[in-house]
Amino acid sequence: MASRISIEEANDFMGIAFETKGPRHVVTHLDDGHAVVRLETDHTHLRPGGYISGPTQMALVDTAAYFSVMSLVGLEPMAVTSNLNMNFLRPCIGKTVVADARMLKIGVALAVMEVDVRVEGAEKAASHAIVTYALPRKETGA
Amino acid sequence: MASRISIEEANDFMGIAFETKGPRHVVTHLDDGHAVVRLETDHTHLRPGGYISGPTQMALVDTAAYFSVMSLVGLEPMAVTSNLNMNFLRPCIGKTVVADARMLKIGVALAVMEVDVRVEGAEKAASHAIVTYALPRKETGA
Amino acid sequence: MASRISIEEANDFMGIAFETKGPRHVVTHLDDGHAVVRLETDHTHLRPGGYISGPTQMALVDTAAYFSVMSLVGLEPMAVTSNLNMNFLRPCIGKTVVADARMLKIGVALAVMEVDVRVEGAEKAASHAIVTYALPRKETGA
Amino acid sequence: MASRISIEEANDFMGIAFETKGPRHVVTHLDDGHAVVRLETDHTHLRPGGYISGPTQMALVDTAAYFSVMSLVGLEPMAVTSNLNMNFLRPCIGKTVVADARMLKIGVALAVMEVDVRVEGAEKAASHAIVTYALPRKETGA
Repeated sequence: MASRISIEEANDFMGIAFETKGPRHVVTHLDDGHAVVRLETDHTHLRPGGYISGPTQMALVDTAAYFSVMSLVGLEPMAVTSNLNMNFLRPCIGKTVVADARMLKIGVALAVMEVDVRVEGAEKAASHAIVTYALPRKETGA
Repeated sequence: MASRISIEEANDFMGIAFETKGPRHVVTHLDDGHAVVRLETDHTHLRPGGYISGPTQMALVDTAAYFSVMSLVGLEPMAVTSNLNMNFLRPCIGKTVVADARMLKIGVALAVMEVDVRVEGAEKAASHAIVTYALPRKETGA
Repeated sequence: MASRISIEEANDFMGIAFETKGPRHVVTHLDDGHAVVRLETDHTHLRPGGYISGPTQMALVDTAAYFSVMSLVGLEPMAVTSNLNMNFLRPCIGKTVVADARMLKIGVALAVMEVDVRVEGAEKAASHAIVTYALPRKETGA
Repeated sequence: MASRISIEEANDFMGIAFETKGPRHVVTHLDDGHAVVRLETDHTHLRPGGYISGPTQMALVDTAAYFSVMSLVGLEPMAVTSNLNMNFLRPCIGKTVVADARMLKIGVALAVMEVDVRVEGAEKAASHAIVTYALPRKETGA
């Protein structure tokens, strides 16, 4: 099933809502609850030793989860992260990093997603997260 | 009890290890497992409506947790985040945001910390996290 | 501020709703978002070595969180656990174990609590949890 | 790849180490980091309305994670749960409940697993967890 928004709409929204001085997160895939977001890192994303930092990975997780929700409900700027549980499994060393989010359950009030983060092309995930987004209440009868 | 490193050493290390194009995290307090880190935000930290973004708060949490560990073990660049569980409790709206990390338990392999994030001067926390850092193995007999 | 329900009402409800073949969880303190629950363990709660098991501690956490919510909203059997993040910090060895839950934030849809678990009288917590409960929607205008 | 221990050894160990007055957890599948554990519930596992309780599901998660580790390292009674993050996605209503654990990453100090819980035969998971076990240190040169 197609997404409620197109990849182009997603990236346009990202450019407006998620300002950054550096490289942008780019949505590369958008499906029925499935979002893939990609980042070409620069030196500000690295820690000594060339490791892509935890915060860089967590930001990418949050974006991928956000668009996983958007693919099902449409652009909803009032949806906010409620909980994010991140496990760092392996060193994340590479130029380009990718977060892949899949919807585990979307209800009226909450959406729960599972997100993998890996260096582009790597077999194993560098980190893994479960993200819960809170969805704004809809007006009854609307 | 004093910290193993001074606030000046902490901020010098931050300047080298955590590069950024924008405003820096600044350590303002460092004690026995207790670290406070402060950030004067700019527009890149905000979402529509003036909310300080989840990733901005998570990055500050990670830094505060890192220096909570450092205050007890000294500068240890090989300590890495293992798990981070973040709950977003209230909108985070303000110019300056502060993360306060306290050590819950430090063992041989892991350190577990509790971190509050709030707008400077606010009574209630915007978010709350539990962070686990993995500590590198020490050589036996050393 | 007093609780919406009394300790007696809480323990009566527990006897009906949380059936068990063994020792019961007993509410010993109930306040404004603050609940303390106590369990005198038997051998079914132990692992080899006399450690109080993880599941025993998690069940006690869930009960304490539940009554933390009830102290603020009254008896609400439709409130359900949404997320539970548990960190096991130290061995839990003793006869009686106590969970202490405090409300971090209660909103319309969710309640987030922090819970400590320790052997009765111990200085340090054996485990620490953050629990999120989902609250049933209220009818508008009711 | 086969498991380090057989299903029979797993269930024998369970009978000794995880005492219970009621129905037992039963290992039904054991593979290379993959463990499936099954429980035929009785009334002590239920909440009003026939829902299988959160603690019942969490206990099953912990057992499945434990045997996922054992399948790779052999019987290791000193392995202990370090962190458990549980998300309750859907009501869990049924007689028999099953937890399915898969290894995400096993290192020297920690093992991280993903666990689904569902009513036997159900298409969708009732709950989903990420569990971290701490592994005891091995003697060097052994």
